[in-house]
Amino acid sequence: MCQLLGMSANTPTDIRFSFSGLRVRGGERGPHRDGYGLCLYRQRGVQAFHDFLPASQSDLAVLLERLPIKADVALGHIRQANVGVVSLVNTHPFIREWRGRYWSFAHNGQFRGSKGLPQTYYTPVGTTDSEAGFCWIMNQLRALARPPGEKRLCTLLHQFFQDLDTRGIFNAMLTDGDRFFTYCSKSLYWITRRAPFGQAKLVDRDMMVDFSRETTPRDVVTLIATEPLTEDEAWTAMQPGELILWKNGEIVWRGV
Amino acid sequence: MCQLLGMSANTPTDIRFSFSGLRVRGGERGPHRDGYGLCLYRQRGVQAFHDFLPASQSDLAVLLERLPIKADVALGHIRQANVGVVSLVNTHPFIREWRGRYWSFAHNGQFRGSKGLPQTYYTPVGTTDSEAGFCWIMNQLRALARPPGEKRLCTLLHQFFQDLDTRGIFNAMLTDGDRFFTYCSKSLYWITRRAPFGQAKLVDRDMMVDFSRETTPRDVVTLIATEPLTEDEAWTAMQPGELILWKNGEIVWRGV
Repeated sequence: MCQLLGMSANTPTDIRFSFSGLRVRGGERGPHRDGYGLCLYRQRGVQAFHDFLPASQSDLAVLLERLPIKADVALGHIRQANVGVVSLVNTHPFIREWRGRYWSFAHNGQFRGSKGLPQTYYTPVGTTDSEAGFCWIMNQLRALARPPGEKRLCTLLHQFFQDLDTRGIFNAMLTDGDRFFTYCSKSLYWITRRAPFGQAKLVDRDMMVDFSRETTPRDVVTLIATEPLTEDEAWTAMQPGELILWKNGEIVWRGV
Repeated sequence: MCQLLGMSANTPTDIRFSFSGLRVRGGERGPHRDGYGLCLYRQRGVQAFHDFLPASQSDLAVLLERLPIKADVALGHIRQANVGVVSLVNTHPFIREWRGRYWSFAHNGQFRGSKGLPQTYYTPVGTTDSEAGFCWIMNQLRALARPPGEKRLCTLLHQFFQDLDTRGIFNAMLTDGDRFFTYCSKSLYWITRRAPFGQAKLVDRDMMVDFSRETTPRDVVTLIATEPLTEDEAWTAMQPGELILWKNGEIVWRGV
């Protein structure tokens, strides 16, 4: 099993505090030793970081923790390999372009029948069930006679995610840098931080942050993760089978 | 005008020495202040780094210089914006998946008529002529009735590159992590390092490396750049209109 981390915010926000917590689960405090990845979006452009080394030991991850990059949307993943060898090509998030946007995807769990999924426009590069699932979803969107509106896109994605979920476990995150979709199979938690901002301490490391010093009163920042990352905030559990679409840190669609 | 850097090697090779030379041309010793990018391939997986800040000042570039990542193939670019604003979406290399491989592309120069190029499968995310040219090339390859063999691929790419070259200046590099294509419009130089290895000093910085200490006698490493990066080695100029396909550091196809 892997761990997921997502962020949707209404202002460019530094993800380092949360990433610091996730990172130590990659081989130090957790078994997720098989690589990690982080996509940071800024105005639809994406900075992607991938490594097949444990996030807790990787030089790149150490450097990332020091890098003051702010993002509108972030998608992170640390991997415990089950399907597919430890390798750069099997490291989430996976990225494909559709309709002039970079879509990235990460998955936690595993599911049956990924080899049998029909692929058309997009082809997996690696050998994970996750990337096969992602390509299959994007291929079905591409095959539509006309591009779906947002509501229809939500309904379709909900259906595709649930489809794969019936074959195993399929916690997933998908984003185009503006819209952020989170689907809960077994375990996803979220928290929305807004004024008045407080303090929080990481579960996994002896690190604290006072958000009131880092934000303006108008900021809205939502974090979504496999397990709560902080110990003194009230995280909300998503329901099994639930899809939420986030935009600018707010819920704009949800369905179970 | 921008600057390009490519590497094709028969063994995973550290690109940091060359990147150090290129980097200072990004705003310190050159006018290429408008972002930079570097794709490092390892077994068809790709680690991509993009930033819209000057390479000479960017925190990420400073960190990259310290990162001991070895690659089979590398593609780097520093940008001086002419078409398209300074932004992450306009930062080379651009990446698309085709037939289960990540293809990345970078361009130096500018050309007319990029807005009028017909796009089908792949759509530009940003607003550069370069990305439009890349998508147009990949769209034509995708539209073929059957996937081309390697010789046919070379002939076709040569034709597409020359086509865009007649509209302006089109020095370009394209790779799938195995095959490395370089096309010279006005300025590209290459050097192949093999045993017996010597020393080299960067043109742009007071840095030296003794390759004999970093290599084995079987290593073959080719560097290709807009201008020679070292001052005590004999770089070969590519001819205008010439395409070379490199594999494992060796020339496997060339045509003018």
